[in-house]
Amino acid sequence: MVVELISVGTEILLGNIVNTNAHFLSLECAKLGYSIFYQSVVGDNESRLLDVIKLAKSRSDIIILTGGLGPTEDDLTKETTAKAYDLPLIEDAHTKKRIQEYFDFTNAKFSTNNWKQALIPKGSIVFDNQNGTAPGLAIKGDDSIAILLPGPPVELIPMFQNDVLPYLQSLSDEVIESVTVKLCGIGESMAESMVLDIIHEQTNPTIAPYAKTGEMHFRITAKARSKEEARMLIAPSVGKLKERFGDYIYTIDEMVQLEDCVVALLKEKNYSITTAESITAGQFAARFVNVAGVSTRFHLGFITYSDDEKHKRLHVKKETLAQFSAVSKEVAYEMALGAAQEANADVAVAITGMASPIDDEHAKAAGTVFVAIYIKGIINVCEYHLNGHRQKVREQAVTKALNQLRMALINEDE
Amino acid sequence: MVVELISVGTEILLGNIVNTNAHFLSLECAKLGYSIFYQSVVGDNESRLLDVIKLAKSRSDIIILTGGLGPTEDDLTKETTAKAYDLPLIEDAHTKKRIQEYFDFTNAKFSTNNWKQALIPKGSIVFDNQNGTAPGLAIKGDDSIAILLPGPPVELIPMFQNDVLPYLQSLSDEVIESVTVKLCGIGESMAESMVLDIIHEQTNPTIAPYAKTGEMHFRITAKARSKEEARMLIAPSVGKLKERFGDYIYTIDEMVQLEDCVVALLKEKNYSITTAESITAGQFAARFVNVAGVSTRFHLGFITYSDDEKHKRLHVKKETLAQFSAVSKEVAYEMALGAAQEANADVAVAITGMASPIDDEHAKAAGTVFVAIYIKGIINVCEYHLNGHRQKVREQAVTKALNQLRMALINEDE
Repeated sequence: MVVELISVGTEILLGNIVNTNAHFLSLECAKLGYSIFYQSVVGDNESRLLDVIKLAKSRSDIIILTGGLGPTEDDLTKETTAKAYDLPLIEDAHTKKRIQEYFDFTNAKFSTNNWKQALIPKGSIVFDNQNGTAPGLAIKGDDSIAILLPGPPVELIPMFQNDVLPYLQSLSDEVIESVTVKLCGIGESMAESMVLDIIHEQTNPTIAPYAKTGEMHFRITAKARSKEEARMLIAPSVGKLKERFGDYIYTIDEMVQLEDCVVALLKEKNYSITTAESITAGQFAARFVNVAGVSTRFHLGFITYSDDEKHKRLHVKKETLAQFSAVSKEVAYEMALGAAQEANADVAVAITGMASPIDDEHAKAAGTVFVAIYIKGIINVCEYHLNGHRQKVREQAVTKALNQLRMALINEDE
Repeated sequence: MVVELISVGTEILLGNIVNTNAHFLSLECAKLGYSIFYQSVVGDNESRLLDVIKLAKSRSDIIILTGGLGPTEDDLTKETTAKAYDLPLIEDAHTKKRIQEYFDFTNAKFSTNNWKQALIPKGSIVFDNQNGTAPGLAIKGDDSIAILLPGPPVELIPMFQNDVLPYLQSLSDEVIESVTVKLCGIGESMAESMVLDIIHEQTNPTIAPYAKTGEMHFRITAKARSKEEARMLIAPSVGKLKERFGDYIYTIDEMVQLEDCVVALLKEKNYSITTAESITAGQFAARFVNVAGVSTRFHLGFITYSDDEKHKRLHVKKETLAQFSAVSKEVAYEMALGAAQEANADVAVAITGMASPIDDEHAKAAGTVFVAIYIKGIINVCEYHLNGHRQKVREQAVTKALNQLRMALINEDE
């Protein structure tokens, strides 16, 4: 199946919004094993949109159009697609009733324009919108299918996951399953080179590498006649990757983030944690609390941006600061120790470093970060050299610290 | 001038990367006053790419192609564009020398493939790449110009700003200038409705509204024969917006963020600041330290996630916590007071709230956030009700707190 994406909206062409829908749909189609050869963006202009739809019809099996389903005169996607497929618009009683109910429930201001959204191209399939008034639609032509989805991601994503995905799957005899193996602590090219032979030797499942900030993911995708068969095809590849990468792998669950793993380890060991941040100034703790239920493990964090406060709050010795400076393994060590004692926590994470050069003399030190991990009296410190601007250095420092903590918690038992 | 964007890369079609270049270039072209009618994405496939370029040539004045300029066999953009414009590739001595120097300097591994990057379509203009080996190119055809840029944003953005932007400007007799008026503390539809008459009554300059998370921007764009003339056209509109919005406007400088304004106010008043965060768990402080030089104002922040630590570190009374709960204006008040005293700071920001429901009984309280601002002994507390998932609530809370602090610092003198 060849899919083509058409995003409709002058606001994308003007750079007003980022086209995240195209990214989301590209990923979903890749997971389904459907190929995308072309994506396009076109404004709210009938003749240009019609040209783009006609071209897509001539070269793709499925066209997914997003945006332009609103109630205003600018919203032309449905009308123009109906024209391209030579179908009249008729009122859909089910959708009309849903629109009425939506306005009754939300007390939103109703305009007679909204009835425009109850019109559908004759014979099309309706996908109910749980978060708005514009329904999604599937229009079946002779050689192609057009799928129309509302532009706001908060409407599009749930509609896609609940209704469009099963519909797309039903168009193919094959079942596609995929598993994402997530790694941290190993560089992109190193990770790829370690499994290049496995990637090249097989075609079903396929293994595709994806580099993320500070992480590396491999997506293993199999096609088969049933879910079970697809999963059986995937299992040996997961096994091979586990064998090669060991503890670099932190999860094979698409929904699990690095911080989830760390909190899970803390819960398993019944450890409490505290943080002592300088360079990252709270960013580590802020990422950590993304995990629901973290409040049973995390009660207190320190942001000690100045040398004085490192001494006062975390009892870092004045001599250590004077001798080694705040950006040193010695200070990181004492920050972790002091934080653990002060917060009476089982685990402490301390991060100190230099995000951008303070003067020419220190230009080379920019990006230098020390992370100290205290676990039950034992402290390990690592030194990192990170690239990029201030924010990028801090983001990477947080990921490095999370992974260092994960490895320390795992290795503690050995 | 009608511009068309073509992003080349199978990795975009697979959803491996987000097409941020298209967003960046859309914004830049809008600022230049150039219209974009079509954007497309196509994979690393010669025949499909050739079709897309030919179509773009037939309908646009300028085609900007990004990606596919690397040294590998997959990189086809230059070769295919040369074919579409019927131009031979010739070696460019200047580029060859630069590539040699790049490898000498970085000690990167050189492959003979890299010489491919020294070939350019005959007669094209070369834009030097300061951050990589692929030069940018401008190819002039009879009816259109093709501009080829490297895909990595770290190479594309500086090249665009240094060389491509002046080149694009030189193609037009008109000068385009724009000013962005940034507002915080007022809703999108309210802000727009307050200036709808100004937006509608004028065409040069134009005024375009842009909604951001927790903020609202208006971009005023004028076309004229000189920069000075364009600026003179813009000035009265800036004046009108200032009159209508007053202190809701925090800057008219594109590069200035909300946190920059707040730090500037603190520096002006010579105030030190501390933070006491519960729900945001360090995210406020982390955003604050985006501002270079903030370390003279900010030395210490507290992350007090539990009730106990709010009492122990910030001296919030146990009775206050028991009577009003941690999510209350009373606790926010005492957190700010305690933090200011403990850190001996002129200003303190305290944020407490509930990001997601802890149980059904408290479902309605999710998104409730209290922000207390202490300035030199005077405390004001605001209550906010924010929508969205955990992270979104926290992000908005940080923006609300920054703006509340900004307003408090401004109003202090009145």
